[in-house]
Amino acid sequence: MKEQYIQLSHGGGGEEMGRLIKDIIFTVFDNPLLQREEDAAVLNLSGETAFTTDSFTVSPLIFKGGDIGKLAVAGTVNDLAMMGAKPHSLSCSFIIEEGFSMATLKTLVQSMARELQVCGARVVCGDTKVVPRGCADGIYINTAGLGQVVQAGISAHNLQPGDAIIVSRDIGCHGATVLMNREGLELEADLHSDCATLWPVVDALIAAGIDIHAMRDATRGGLSAVVNEWARAAGVGITLQEAAIPVRDAVRGLCELYGMEPFDLANEGTFVLALPADQVADALAVMATFACCPSAAEIGCVDQRQLGKVLLATPWGSLRYLDVPQGELLPRIC
Amino acid sequence: MKEQYIQLSHGGGGEEMGRLIKDIIFTVFDNPLLQREEDAAVLNLSGETAFTTDSFTVSPLIFKGGDIGKLAVAGTVNDLAMMGAKPHSLSCSFIIEEGFSMATLKTLVQSMARELQVCGARVVCGDTKVVPRGCADGIYINTAGLGQVVQAGISAHNLQPGDAIIVSRDIGCHGATVLMNREGLELEADLHSDCATLWPVVDALIAAGIDIHAMRDATRGGLSAVVNEWARAAGVGITLQEAAIPVRDAVRGLCELYGMEPFDLANEGTFVLALPADQVADALAVMATFACCPSAAEIGCVDQRQLGKVLLATPWGSLRYLDVPQGELLPRIC
Repeated sequence: MKEQYIQLSHGGGGEEMGRLIKDIIFTVFDNPLLQREEDAAVLNLSGETAFTTDSFTVSPLIFKGGDIGKLAVAGTVNDLAMMGAKPHSLSCSFIIEEGFSMATLKTLVQSMARELQVCGARVVCGDTKVVPRGCADGIYINTAGLGQVVQAGISAHNLQPGDAIIVSRDIGCHGATVLMNREGLELEADLHSDCATLWPVVDALIAAGIDIHAMRDATRGGLSAVVNEWARAAGVGITLQEAAIPVRDAVRGLCELYGMEPFDLANEGTFVLALPADQVADALAVMATFACCPSAAEIGCVDQRQLGKVLLATPWGSLRYLDVPQGELLPRIC
Repeated sequence: MKEQYIQLSHGGGGEEMGRLIKDIIFTVFDNPLLQREEDAAVLNLSGETAFTTDSFTVSPLIFKGGDIGKLAVAGTVNDLAMMGAKPHSLSCSFIIEEGFSMATLKTLVQSMARELQVCGARVVCGDTKVVPRGCADGIYINTAGLGQVVQAGISAHNLQPGDAIIVSRDIGCHGATVLMNREGLELEADLHSDCATLWPVVDALIAAGIDIHAMRDATRGGLSAVVNEWARAAGVGITLQEAAIPVRDAVRGLCELYGMEPFDLANEGTFVLALPADQVADALAVMATFACCPSAAEIGCVDQRQLGKVLLATPWGSLRYLDVPQGELLPRIC
């Protein structure tokens, strides 16, 4: 079959756009709300609803362990999960560059649909824009998400001195993988993005009665950004034990090569949890049963040493500040 | 003051992004949900909730009668209003090209905030991405919106033979204005976009007890797209009276110049309404009190002449099909 490409007419609001949406998007995201083709989807939500959005501009569009479609679903449902909310419905909006491969678009939409199955959420509304060549880089995807809050009160403002801090797995895999793929590096190591939907493990932690004080996925800005935001928001100190923070050798090697810190690298399926210290063992036991948490570890605690600041205790017994990352980091990481 | 520009570091998830968001976005969209800086906003919604999204890529970013910020608010809240839903909360996601003017960004955010005041909705969550030069064209804005359904059951599927069809004002002003601004044309006529938030007039129609069967804003694809989608969805025929459809001279002139049909031109504050014929006078009386409906008119009716098709009765007594627009139309119109 002849390869087909997106044309400006696919974004014009006319016949061609109608066919594109029906043939590729509705067919894959098959559900009755989309099929109604109204201006908005009508949902019945009750109780507290979490609402979030992210635009995804990652380059390359397909990387080891994921693609922009999987990322656009996982990224948004994870923001809901981090608020203790079960993902319910997503919107999906594409900005596509003229000349983009129709087959790749279909692959990405299928990847989104597959990732949605992990948490049971559905795409219920959307939009498609086509921009001329040179006005985008392939495709950008925005998703907004709605979730029903199952455990209320999870918040950066709830950190309490004495809380333990857990990270769900080794850090930096997404950032390192995208960098490696972008630079065309071939490492021997089987390094791939941690991109994953976190609702199932969060659901299990809630079901196990873990008293989650704060929870956040360590995306752009990495672990450093999360713990610094927490310390500032709650007006507490945080001390992390460097030796306890899991970093795999391939990530550490790449960081040395490029002069980066693994703490600053983006993740897309790694989260940080603050909870009462006496619940750490229970939480780690729950996490150990999930493939997305291959190396969960207690990495530090909330204290009152330096309010609003994060300290890193090095393996050599010294203390240094772990600051919010600065500078360009890795553009288009998500 | 030295002019400042967006840099890649403003999208990195670190210190610079934090400052940009606090200084420009939080300051303008000032509300407690945003200030909490959580991964998602938590809302209390009840009853039926309408959910919609649109990405905006219009060029030029600022045009007569509006800008991409005003459009990003009006476009999304209008999709909610068209479902009989009072706009409640919006997400706002920016994709900004490196080198974009910080002052222009602030102007656009302020324009969004001003437009939000028309319907009382708030921006409660958001995202900011920065892409390198050549990977966007200035700025793209995505908004997703939530609204509480005040009048349930409005749907393209509800059209009934005998229904009258009203258009809220003269058509094609947005498409014609953007085209004129893009081409650098200077017409003597005071032509500007119809870009407007439609919730107040919809609210008044509902309050007046108008039995709205179907309602849709005629954006991309214009009036032609709306009535064709309706005829197909409801399996009815629609006949419009060409002479009754309001088109101002400046729009008609531009259409003749470029070989376009005013029916196909995009609007951003113009809607089409299907209702029982005996309520036309009441509906027009309500609309006459709103500045965004300067020339509302009854333009046709639902019938069973040609199911799934739209007929246009010309001033010369002949009938022709009004088809769904095809081809490129105007790229980046919204």
